[in-house]
Amino acid sequence: MKIDIIGKGNVGTHLWRAFQPECDCVCVSSRDLAGLRKDSDIYIICVSDNVIAEIAEKVASEADKNSVIAHTSGSTPLSALQNIAQHKGVFYPLQTFSKNVELDYSEIPLFIEGDNDRTENILKKCGQMISDRVLTADSGTRCNLHVASVFGCNFVNHLWTLADNYLNSKGLNFDLLMPLIKETTRKIQRTTPRKAQTGPASRNDTVTIGKHLEQLSIFPEMQEIYRILSESIVRNSDNQSIK
Amino acid sequence: MKIDIIGKGNVGTHLWRAFQPECDCVCVSSRDLAGLRKDSDIYIICVSDNVIAEIAEKVASEADKNSVIAHTSGSTPLSALQNIAQHKGVFYPLQTFSKNVELDYSEIPLFIEGDNDRTENILKKCGQMISDRVLTADSGTRCNLHVASVFGCNFVNHLWTLADNYLNSKGLNFDLLMPLIKETTRKIQRTTPRKAQTGPASRNDTVTIGKHLEQLSIFPEMQEIYRILSESIVRNSDNQSIK
Repeated sequence: MKIDIIGKGNVGTHLWRAFQPECDCVCVSSRDLAGLRKDSDIYIICVSDNVIAEIAEKVASEADKNSVIAHTSGSTPLSALQNIAQHKGVFYPLQTFSKNVELDYSEIPLFIEGDNDRTENILKKCGQMISDRVLTADSGTRCNLHVASVFGCNFVNHLWTLADNYLNSKGLNFDLLMPLIKETTRKIQRTTPRKAQTGPASRNDTVTIGKHLEQLSIFPEMQEIYRILSESIVRNSDNQSIK
Repeated sequence: MKIDIIGKGNVGTHLWRAFQPECDCVCVSSRDLAGLRKDSDIYIICVSDNVIAEIAEKVASEADKNSVIAHTSGSTPLSALQNIAQHKGVFYPLQTFSKNVELDYSEIPLFIEGDNDRTENILKKCGQMISDRVLTADSGTRCNLHVASVFGCNFVNHLWTLADNYLNSKGLNFDLLMPLIKETTRKIQRTTPRKAQTGPASRNDTVTIGKHLEQLSIFPEMQEIYRILSESIVRNSDNQSIK
């Protein structure tokens, strides 16, 4: 299988690393497409959502008409590729990619969509070269997964950034939180997050919540986030938890 | 060393499990204190913040005058124990405890405070029986650690609850997010959370953010949280990240 990856950002770089030992794969920059091959089986477009259609059309003008052109975006429908003549698909890896952090690709869930069964089969075979979890998902399902992943990953990581900033401002090291963070993650592999919830808001401990809001008075951004997330926890909580 | 733990909630239960193989330890209910011993070296009060002073005073009326009485609260100052005659201290484990989830106690950072050096030494020795990371921290430092841990653990877990609720409402399983969640946690052990940030807001991808907010229009609570956290990410971001 011959695969061309278009885009050298976080996703493109990681997909290239994953495919390179498995098949004949190149990765080209989306800026000039230098090195793009005309006779590849699959072209995987790994660019920002707002330029997917434009880059896909440039690739389509070069590529074999029997090839598959797929994008990797969670929130972009398959129909974004409607203007190209080739077979159209989506190859969405549900993972967070940073160039400098190595990954075990075999565990990444890959969500496949194709304009017909043949396209889906090609993309599935392609996905199975690198991952043990290749699933089909239509554009609506993929959007739902993407929204959930923003909460489950991007927002979570941002809370850690805020905690890091806060501790630094107090002369404390974020490393002190690592055992807690590891355990928070480990726990939900054994129980549901709802059952795993602890902390002042889950006990509706208004005194501690009030103290914390006061401590955050010189950090208005964190204070607002603290208030809104605590209110949300109180509303969602069974209040069965005791510290 | 003889230790009495007061309170059978999440913290009391876990501390009892941790100490039991190491020393002579009992755990009694804070409701009736039945089984409390008069001649223990340390009494560790593991109750809700709002009843710490009251329960500590009841324990103090029973306990040997040379003993140490300590609470386990992040946001309660040592001075909450001012009305008791015994030595006073704090024994704060920076961890999330759920009764039904086993833990490796040796990795839990324990923050110790005492009313004098002797008390701190006793509490340190006590802590070192179960943990490899026993540190001293005054009440102000402990409050700062507690606020950071609410962001780093309690709020993070709640975002997972919201993601779980959302996926369930769409007929999808939260397990699909587990590889992503594990990787999110693994990444910040290799880089800072700021550098690990990915997602629409870190790219200031207003089109995707707009789509997601629209998808969340029938989940107003999640929609508000999405908006506020995305705005916070945009403000904190270097905008160097490319998907």
